Amino acid sequence: MKLKRSARLVDMTRFLLEHPHRLVPLTHFSDRYGSAKSSISEDLGIIKESFEQQGAGSLITVPGAAGGVKYIPLSNEEEAAQIIADLSERLSKPERILPGGYLYMTDILGNPELMNKIGRLFSSVFADRSIDVVMTVATKGIPLAYAVATYLNVPVVIVRRDSRVTEGSTVSINYISGSSKRIQTMALARRSLEAGSRVLVIDDFMKAGGTIQGMVSLLEEFQATVAGIGVLVEAQGDIEERLVEEFVSLMSLSQVDVKEKKVTVEPGNYRHKADKLLKGETE
Amino acid sequence: MKLKRSARLVDMTRFLLEHPHRLVPLTHFSDRYGSAKSSISEDLGIIKESFEQQGAGSLITVPGAAGGVKYIPLSNEEEAAQIIADLSERLSKPERILPGGYLYMTDILGNPELMNKIGRLFSSVFADRSIDVVMTVATKGIPLAYAVATYLNVPVVIVRRDSRVTEGSTVSINYISGSSKRIQTMALARRSLEAGSRVLVIDDFMKAGGTIQGMVSLLEEFQATVAGIGVLVEAQGDIEERLVEEFVSLMSLSQVDVKEKKVTVEPGNYRHKADKLLKGETE
Repeated sequence: MKLKRSARLVDMTRFLLEHPHRLVPLTHFSDRYGSAKSSISEDLGIIKESFEQQGAGSLITVPGAAGGVKYIPLSNEEEAAQIIADLSERLSKPERILPGGYLYMTDILGNPELMNKIGRLFSSVFADRSIDVVMTVATKGIPLAYAVATYLNVPVVIVRRDSRVTEGSTVSINYISGSSKRIQTMALARRSLEAGSRVLVIDDFMKAGGTIQGMVSLLEEFQATVAGIGVLVEAQGDIEERLVEEFVSLMSLSQVDVKEKKVTVEPGNYRHKADKLLKGETE
Repeated sequence: MKLKRSARLVDMTRFLLEHPHRLVPLTHFSDRYGSAKSSISEDLGIIKESFEQQGAGSLITVPGAAGGVKYIPLSNEEEAAQIIADLSERLSKPERILPGGYLYMTDILGNPELMNKIGRLFSSVFADRSIDVVMTVATKGIPLAYAVATYLNVPVVIVRRDSRVTEGSTVSINYISGSSKRIQTMALARRSLEAGSRVLVIDDFMKAGGTIQGMVSLLEEFQATVAGIGVLVEAQGDIEERLVEEFVSLMSLSQVDVKEKKVTVEPGNYRHKADKLLKGETE
């Protein structure tokens, strides 16, 4: 069908947003709209300018016969600051405090709009790390892992504490939980991960880092590489030794005072890491 | 900032796609772009026409001071047929057959792009059911539940087979698994669901329906209402009695022949149900 520029802009914007990190040949659009490639190029220029001005991300044009256009979702500092402020407010509420000094986070993890925003943030900092797959451990990390993977356009693999008949053969390892020092088991379906994959590990919470260290060990069994680690909340205090050194955290939980009913949260290392990781990326 | 129509169209399209099922006052856009409401109305007309022509969904305009515009993602028949054909091909592959006649579906559930497409399909059929929350059971149903909830713009609650300290107090029930006739337990955090909520139950797989029936019983404990049930794959055959009557299924698995290495899948009742549910919805 032949479309006017205004209608093309709406439809192309939608297509690009729904297919991040994918190289789309210009012929895809020129065939779809019955338009000349030169018109499509102009349209893409308008979309690129809007995306960059409004902080949606970037459009990268790859020239040549095998070329096309690729949408890279990127969050700007303002958006990151807003999300961190929002999370600080939510996490500080004293009614989140559970017996034992745990923090109720189920509602936050159950909010798809928030998870998608945070997923976009993490996908931004790891946008140039050539991620092949996002990995997490059941259950609480799953929503965030999917959100990140959606924006990176890669599959998700889910490590489990048990193994299931519906997964086929699995590889399992034992690991030491960092905080409780107990031996635990985690398993991953053998066919879910190819050797050589570059893996982004995502989880909702990290204390000493035993669970994440476990995932890293599991990746070694699959001859896969850790290409990055992202956690929503890292916990401070009472940690003898952090098992994971290199990670990006959005929030940092320094104290849960059960008696005084006070939660102390701060921004994590996200902004610092984002600055480092993004340097040279968009240019 | 003052924007031209073309730039406004790109940015408004993005905003609407990222905020489905939300009433956005026109002043949100007129303030953001420094444009007259009449221009914004014209822009919305262009976006609405494109969305409807290209099968992205509908824009509903609510007049008056408390009014605005709402984007309702709706899949059309063509899109549903494509996804069903794609799933049929994927599911029929004999290498999916696991010992015991189970089917490996982990890669399908681990594909965010596919989950988002399927999520949009389910959100379409339940678009006018006034859903307050999407519920699923850990672990495999989670990705699809989030995808559906993203398009409906509602929270997700996750029922667990165990209860965790990080969930606070939970309500748990025993239920009989439909296929194995074993007694099982499922639990949901007490504060995760308000009384009176209208709940859409989503799961990846349903055989006799015991697990879903369990979720329905759990909802009764919370004085919540089942507003719909959607499953990705329903299994046929060898089922004495189906415990759940009213549900929407995308695929139907009629046979897994381990000896002949043959999987027989058919479209589920989706198209039939969608026709019924959507009648009167868009017009």
